[in-house]
Amino acid sequence: MARQSTHDRLLASGRELIHRQGLAASGVAEITAAASVPKGSFYNHFASKEAFAVAALDDYWAAGGPIQAILAGPGAVPERVRRHFEAIGADMAAGGFVAGCLLGNMASEAGPVSEPMRRRAAELFAAWTGALAACLRAGQDAGEVGRAVPAETLARFLIAAWGGAVQRAKVERDDRAFAAFHTVLTTLIEP
Amino acid sequence: MARQSTHDRLLASGRELIHRQGLAASGVAEITAAASVPKGSFYNHFASKEAFAVAALDDYWAAGGPIQAILAGPGAVPERVRRHFEAIGADMAAGGFVAGCLLGNMASEAGPVSEPMRRRAAELFAAWTGALAACLRAGQDAGEVGRAVPAETLARFLIAAWGGAVQRAKVERDDRAFAAFHTVLTTLIEP
Repeated sequence: MARQSTHDRLLASGRELIHRQGLAASGVAEITAAASVPKGSFYNHFASKEAFAVAALDDYWAAGGPIQAILAGPGAVPERVRRHFEAIGADMAAGGFVAGCLLGNMASEAGPVSEPMRRRAAELFAAWTGALAACLRAGQDAGEVGRAVPAETLARFLIAAWGGAVQRAKVERDDRAFAAFHTVLTTLIEP
Repeated sequence: MARQSTHDRLLASGRELIHRQGLAASGVAEITAAASVPKGSFYNHFASKEAFAVAALDDYWAAGGPIQAILAGPGAVPERVRRHFEAIGADMAAGGFVAGCLLGNMASEAGPVSEPMRRRAAELFAAWTGALAACLRAGQDAGEVGRAVPAETLARFLIAAWGGAVQRAKVERDDRAFAAFHTVLTTLIEP
């Protein structure tokens, strides 16, 4: 039980730390201090800081399950897509737009220097794209979404557009980038 | 003359370093080693690593002048916009898609922890958005670009969409994200 608890505390506190200040800036000593556990205990739970970061990203992804579930329904597809991105944006607004998206951050920062993180980020982007593409395809079949662009391409494009909006919101500290995203989203998916 | 040369070497080699591996991971010792200058000389030229990073970002932006100039013409607006993003994409393809965009990287990594970098990144995003918006507005006036979305909103959206595509290309190490961007771009700006 104690082992599980230390593991969970490391994940929760460490995830918050690397989300806010990045991976390279967050040493193992700082991660263990944030979790209030002895520094030596870190390596009982994670083989390396890199392994910890991949686990933290998986944890972040799992926590986003309810937001992913919006895409699967119920509701009209354009409304589902809108609510999906609004829910992510609301989380970011609650945090003052500072930290952004951990998946995007890790892709940007760790992608070039960590092969396990690069692969995991690519897999999670692919899973997200698959879920959004399935939703958009259902919308195209129901005549709720235009067919000018294949669902898979549109999903890939929209997730990128969202990721870039998050990046910009991080430096503007407001929701102008999200507002532009939603304005164009409406135009883009209308039948 | 020697002073200028050391300054330029620090900028050139250091910029390449922080572009590839990030700011937090790049210590002053590593930056000076990459530039083959004594470590102590760093602070003769830059007040801090943060000041260096802002100068490196300005240098990166200045180097992108010819790519920005494509937006101002000549040529039809949809073609200018396409060539603008293709030119950036070609640079990234030449580097194996590893490093991504320094502006996006710094927004993502340094935005939450460095106020000077956050402000400078916001200014450069605004300058880029202004240039693209002016181009799109000219296209709308000439009937070459649709009017469904205001030029400023469309510019802001497209730059975000591009930034997110770059982020994804960094983990996929190929141009699928750029291909999706260009497919939707064509649909999005047609009259």
